[in-house]
Amino acid sequence: MAQKPSIPKGTRDFSPEEMMRRTYIFDTIRSVFRLFGYAPLETPSMENLSTLLGKYGDEGDKLLFKILNSGDYGAKLSEEELRQASKISEKGLRYDLTVPFARYVVQHQNEIVFPFKRYQIQPVWRADRPQKGRYREFYQCDVDVIGSKSLLSEVELVDIVARVFSKLGISITLKMNNRKILYGIAESIGHADKMIDITVAIDKLDKIGLDNVKNELRERGIDDEAINKLQPILELSGTNSEKLCKLSEVIADSETGMLGIEEMRTIFDNVEALGIALTPELDLSLARGLNYYTGAIFEVKANDFQIGSISGGGRYDDLTGIFGMPGMSGVGISFGADRIYDVMLGLDLFPKELACSTKVLFTNFGAEEQLAAMRVMAELRNRGVATEIYPEASKMKKQMEYANRRGIPYVVIIGSEELQRGVATLKDMLSGEQREVALTALAEQF
Amino acid sequence: MAQKPSIPKGTRDFSPEEMMRRTYIFDTIRSVFRLFGYAPLETPSMENLSTLLGKYGDEGDKLLFKILNSGDYGAKLSEEELRQASKISEKGLRYDLTVPFARYVVQHQNEIVFPFKRYQIQPVWRADRPQKGRYREFYQCDVDVIGSKSLLSEVELVDIVARVFSKLGISITLKMNNRKILYGIAESIGHADKMIDITVAIDKLDKIGLDNVKNELRERGIDDEAINKLQPILELSGTNSEKLCKLSEVIADSETGMLGIEEMRTIFDNVEALGIALTPELDLSLARGLNYYTGAIFEVKANDFQIGSISGGGRYDDLTGIFGMPGMSGVGISFGADRIYDVMLGLDLFPKELACSTKVLFTNFGAEEQLAAMRVMAELRNRGVATEIYPEASKMKKQMEYANRRGIPYVVIIGSEELQRGVATLKDMLSGEQREVALTALAEQF
Repeated sequence: MAQKPSIPKGTRDFSPEEMMRRTYIFDTIRSVFRLFGYAPLETPSMENLSTLLGKYGDEGDKLLFKILNSGDYGAKLSEEELRQASKISEKGLRYDLTVPFARYVVQHQNEIVFPFKRYQIQPVWRADRPQKGRYREFYQCDVDVIGSKSLLSEVELVDIVARVFSKLGISITLKMNNRKILYGIAESIGHADKMIDITVAIDKLDKIGLDNVKNELRERGIDDEAINKLQPILELSGTNSEKLCKLSEVIADSETGMLGIEEMRTIFDNVEALGIALTPELDLSLARGLNYYTGAIFEVKANDFQIGSISGGGRYDDLTGIFGMPGMSGVGISFGADRIYDVMLGLDLFPKELACSTKVLFTNFGAEEQLAAMRVMAELRNRGVATEIYPEASKMKKQMEYANRRGIPYVVIIGSEELQRGVATLKDMLSGEQREVALTALAEQF
Repeated sequence: MAQKPSIPKGTRDFSPEEMMRRTYIFDTIRSVFRLFGYAPLETPSMENLSTLLGKYGDEGDKLLFKILNSGDYGAKLSEEELRQASKISEKGLRYDLTVPFARYVVQHQNEIVFPFKRYQIQPVWRADRPQKGRYREFYQCDVDVIGSKSLLSEVELVDIVARVFSKLGISITLKMNNRKILYGIAESIGHADKMIDITVAIDKLDKIGLDNVKNELRERGIDDEAINKLQPILELSGTNSEKLCKLSEVIADSETGMLGIEEMRTIFDNVEALGIALTPELDLSLARGLNYYTGAIFEVKANDFQIGSISGGGRYDDLTGIFGMPGMSGVGISFGADRIYDVMLGLDLFPKELACSTKVLFTNFGAEEQLAAMRVMAELRNRGVATEIYPEASKMKKQMEYANRRGIPYVVIIGSEELQRGVATLKDMLSGEQREVALTALAEQF
């Protein structure tokens, strides 16, 4: 009995129309990456579980998709062994592109030219609870440079962000902060040991407001005196320079904090000096799930569409240490292609001409007409023009309907009468105009 | 303790150099697909196991990669249930692109415009024993048209094959046969019931020779009288027309067989009339794992490189029947990108300029020089020229070495002296020549 087909929850098919739009986004992002000397890398969909486990926090391990070992394992293992997932699975699907990148760098350290600038655009998988905007399979577009501490890399990332969203036509705000500054803040209020608690709480400032953030801090054991020192920092306003200036007075005793301030000054000054068409906004409450960031952090939001962040990243001083190669500093940023897609769809930013790549449909009214049509089509294809012929000699109405539904802008009609006279009727499907053209002159029309 | 990282057997990382070559192949194939009006489709990496099981023969089911259900299944199931894979896995990774395509067509039948011409370029996964040239994760490049019985589609596929391999520079032989002809042959030697045995045996003709094929046929219960009728068919020579003529005398009593001959005549005549730059070779021993083929079948081999087939496909009259929608006829072909890669590498067919996409490296000799360099780089990037700056003010030798190892063709040197005079030294890394250029005139040089 035939089954009604479906796909697993949290996954999607992409129709030709959706594919053209997604490709437009990837191509745009890729073209900017290449302008800055980033080279493409691809890693396997499946990694050894040992590579993936423990890298994404407790929650992360649960969200990994694990792959069953092949073969007849079932009969041979004991019940105890079966209950241990490790005996029946040793591989898992990529959860992100950063851990595979770090694994690749360590594995190939002797062949790689450092500093290594790579981009990676591939799908990743997470066994999240599916909901609107959250999928179990989705693409990440990452760009990272590893093997250099130079802040020029951060400056270039600002430029990359500016150019990507300018090309896509999305108005954005780029917020930046620095983990050293966050440490400095924690240190200056007397709670360097509770830095993570503090930053997790203040990261929610935009969402829950200052009073609720204070409550969270109290719940995490931060005393009111410290909270009162924190408030003016979170309420700092003015330009980035002004904020940094005032901040440097408040956290002057924190060496790490002052280093962070210096880093941000250098980055902002260079961005301005180079006339990069995007001014980052220093946001001292920005934390971004700190796992491995050690310096500057980035977050991009769309100004005219509510969707959470559409790009984010930061500097990390020891990503490859987990795989045995310490001391490699790097910085990178990731573009959330699926969210960007939703923003562009919502704001109607996709170019109209993306709809269909076929330019001309040739009608089919019999064997001889077919042959004549296909000869002209060969000429068109030699000139790079995408063209199709209706496969059967169906009624005119059906063939025109096909052209309409496919969104093909031109139809060439060759009936037996036209064929005798060596001409064809060229119809513009948008304007409705039609005119006669000699078969020999058709190819040049396009 | 840090682990020495590795990836699962049968999988591969693709370095930037390999990525550029692979992308070259995919882009070439894709550009030809689009010329013929094929539109892109993508399906999820994971399908429901019910979609995949039973579609690839007994061997196929064993080669599927199954995905463990998420969550704490282990503790709740009985031992018997644990041993049944079905209780712990309901999803699997794509094994090919044809079954997902059929599933998509049935699922979206009300939205799709028929005939539906789609191409799909995505990875698939098979738990094969890994060996040279055989991977557990590899790409397929498929093109199929479904919803039309027209032989024009077969003719266009010949054209597509011709153009793809012409663009890639690979000299090929395209062999064709027809399942109706194979049935006709079996019928004419009195063993229509043993068609599969017969065709599996004769498909090995190229590899094991006629005598061994005869032995196999005997082992499969084909009597000598039938084998003797078969021999002259397998030994038919001459042009396609001549072969078809002689064949039509031998299998004249088989209605299906004669239909197959007529189909091939139509296809070959049209290919010739259209001047398609590739003449298919009728090979009556070609069978190609018959699972769902019902008409013409294709196989492409590289003439100058031993690797097995690099492309193959055929006509199928009822692919979507397995998902509840009978009667959809289609035809398609698949390009084996990994094998094509090996052929091109072995025959040195990749264009030299693929090596590195960055065109210019700017040296870095200090903060002011950096700024001047990055201003010119912005101009270059605005003109679409890919450029990098060495991130730190290291010694000249180190920076030049970086340019060399990366294969960057030009280096722009801006030292403090040059900066004073508003010039830079532009060095051609291939020829070794260098000349001075005004900073303001640098961008136009590229």
